[in-house]
Amino acid sequence: MAGTQSGGKEISVGGELRRQPNRFTDRITPDGTWPVEPGRYRLIVSLACPWAHRSIIVRGLLGLQDVISMGVVDPLRDDTGWRFTLDEGDQDPVLKIKYLSEAYLATDPTYDRRVTVPSIVDVPSGKVVTNDFPQITRDLHTEWRAFHRAGAPDLYPEAMRDEIEAVAEPIYRNINNGVYRCGFATTQEAYDNAYTDLWDELDRVSARLESRRYLMGDRITEADIRLFPTLVRFDAVYHGHFKCNRQKLTEMPVLWAYARDLFQTPGFGDTVDWDHIKRHYYVTHRHLNPSGVVPQGPDPSVWNEPHNRA
Amino acid sequence: MAGTQSGGKEISVGGELRRQPNRFTDRITPDGTWPVEPGRYRLIVSLACPWAHRSIIVRGLLGLQDVISMGVVDPLRDDTGWRFTLDEGDQDPVLKIKYLSEAYLATDPTYDRRVTVPSIVDVPSGKVVTNDFPQITRDLHTEWRAFHRAGAPDLYPEAMRDEIEAVAEPIYRNINNGVYRCGFATTQEAYDNAYTDLWDELDRVSARLESRRYLMGDRITEADIRLFPTLVRFDAVYHGHFKCNRQKLTEMPVLWAYARDLFQTPGFGDTVDWDHIKRHYYVTHRHLNPSGVVPQGPDPSVWNEPHNRA
Repeated sequence: MAGTQSGGKEISVGGELRRQPNRFTDRITPDGTWPVEPGRYRLIVSLACPWAHRSIIVRGLLGLQDVISMGVVDPLRDDTGWRFTLDEGDQDPVLKIKYLSEAYLATDPTYDRRVTVPSIVDVPSGKVVTNDFPQITRDLHTEWRAFHRAGAPDLYPEAMRDEIEAVAEPIYRNINNGVYRCGFATTQEAYDNAYTDLWDELDRVSARLESRRYLMGDRITEADIRLFPTLVRFDAVYHGHFKCNRQKLTEMPVLWAYARDLFQTPGFGDTVDWDHIKRHYYVTHRHLNPSGVVPQGPDPSVWNEPHNRA
Repeated sequence: MAGTQSGGKEISVGGELRRQPNRFTDRITPDGTWPVEPGRYRLIVSLACPWAHRSIIVRGLLGLQDVISMGVVDPLRDDTGWRFTLDEGDQDPVLKIKYLSEAYLATDPTYDRRVTVPSIVDVPSGKVVTNDFPQITRDLHTEWRAFHRAGAPDLYPEAMRDEIEAVAEPIYRNINNGVYRCGFATTQEAYDNAYTDLWDELDRVSARLESRRYLMGDRITEADIRLFPTLVRFDAVYHGHFKCNRQKLTEMPVLWAYARDLFQTPGFGDTVDWDHIKRHYYVTHRHLNPSGVVPQGPDPSVWNEPHNRA
């Protein structure tokens, strides 16, 4: 996932997380080098990863399941990186590779940084087109429009794009990436700064959602899709494992009702795999949790309680 | 503290915590080898430690502060063990030692296990009389009665002792020690067993407290004093650090009101040092938290909310 690293390469001298840039930033467009074409590309995801989660939700809501196929990696990433051990013969049935790194090296033989999800791979050549997660969902909305299902929602309306990006930018910095900045901080000061940024932003977002059902008003947009994967992982992982523990999400009444509202919307909760999420974080991050023991709590059934947001 | 170990000596092959027995089990009694005598003994505690916390509460409620003096160790235990770095010259002003281990070695030159708190030291000889925490509080109740303050409560009434011990035994096994069994488990199976035992017992205790203000009925007893130190540390430490995360204490209505009721009783909440508690666990247990970063949450001010138990 674009959101986890276990080595020290992305930690500054001050103990702060500095996320590596996305390496592959080509785009699939109707008329470009990588043309929009059903059946040609494969989206590789981890069900644990919040950055990949966005693309899973958008692909589903837009009805692109039969247009762009999807491969799922093992939630446990070892020294060899993301592996296709959930598939028969431990290899992806379409790409015929055992490790996602094989596609990276086929694209750039000098690549030596983290292999991340989501990645979109061109099936005929086996090359990685993009691992640029914010652009991936934007392009699913705009470039693949001809293949959206009939009646698909417009989740990234042209007139709202500037506002969506303006709202999403501090959410990315302080919340989506902010929980990682808390969890991966190696100094008290770096953690304290990240914690303050996180909770200030959660309070701002909560205030915004007091008078709006969704971040942009009365309709679900890309902005909600970007926030949801972090909220859904909050109590299960970030609260304890990443020390984001001012409160649980369940103790933030507005945000908690908002998150449940989304969870109970088709295309959201049905994409959440608690087992993959918990095992990935607690087992893979041995630098945070040396024993690899996975906590049993909390009980996810609370996500189905009425939200009363409508 | 009797409750923390960072090496592997107390972990079984199955990954379970096996707490070392208390080494010094002499007793101070009116007519014994170690006679009850005001000013003669010194209680050494860590404000972080739940086992020491019991003795601090009992000493205070019985008004023994001027009879048995108290030394407080640094919450951060390093390779040299518990240190008197909070005192001038980094040494205990009464015992004139820098490390509690000096008293242990003066008593048993072959001692090579963990040095624990609470310990009671005989000031004239500098020898450890006892580090047997369950017996320490029992003896403060029964053997030091002649020096209790006027009007001191009887916290360990003779007629209730069997029942107190019967109620406290599974609480010790599953809750007081149970949170450590969760946190120090090195295998998933050992953790899962400890987690089940912990929550089954918390549910049983919660049910008991639905119809009783305190564990034994309408009066505070030794049983409550043994349970309180674990409950007060629950959300600040055990929930995240020890993976005791089915719920926060604040999400268990009966137990949470009961714990606040005690916290707001003179002699309980005023003995809680959040800074010592959080720094001790998160900084000392590098095998659980390699970064040593101390979480900022949760906000302890909720402990002062009305409990409505009276």
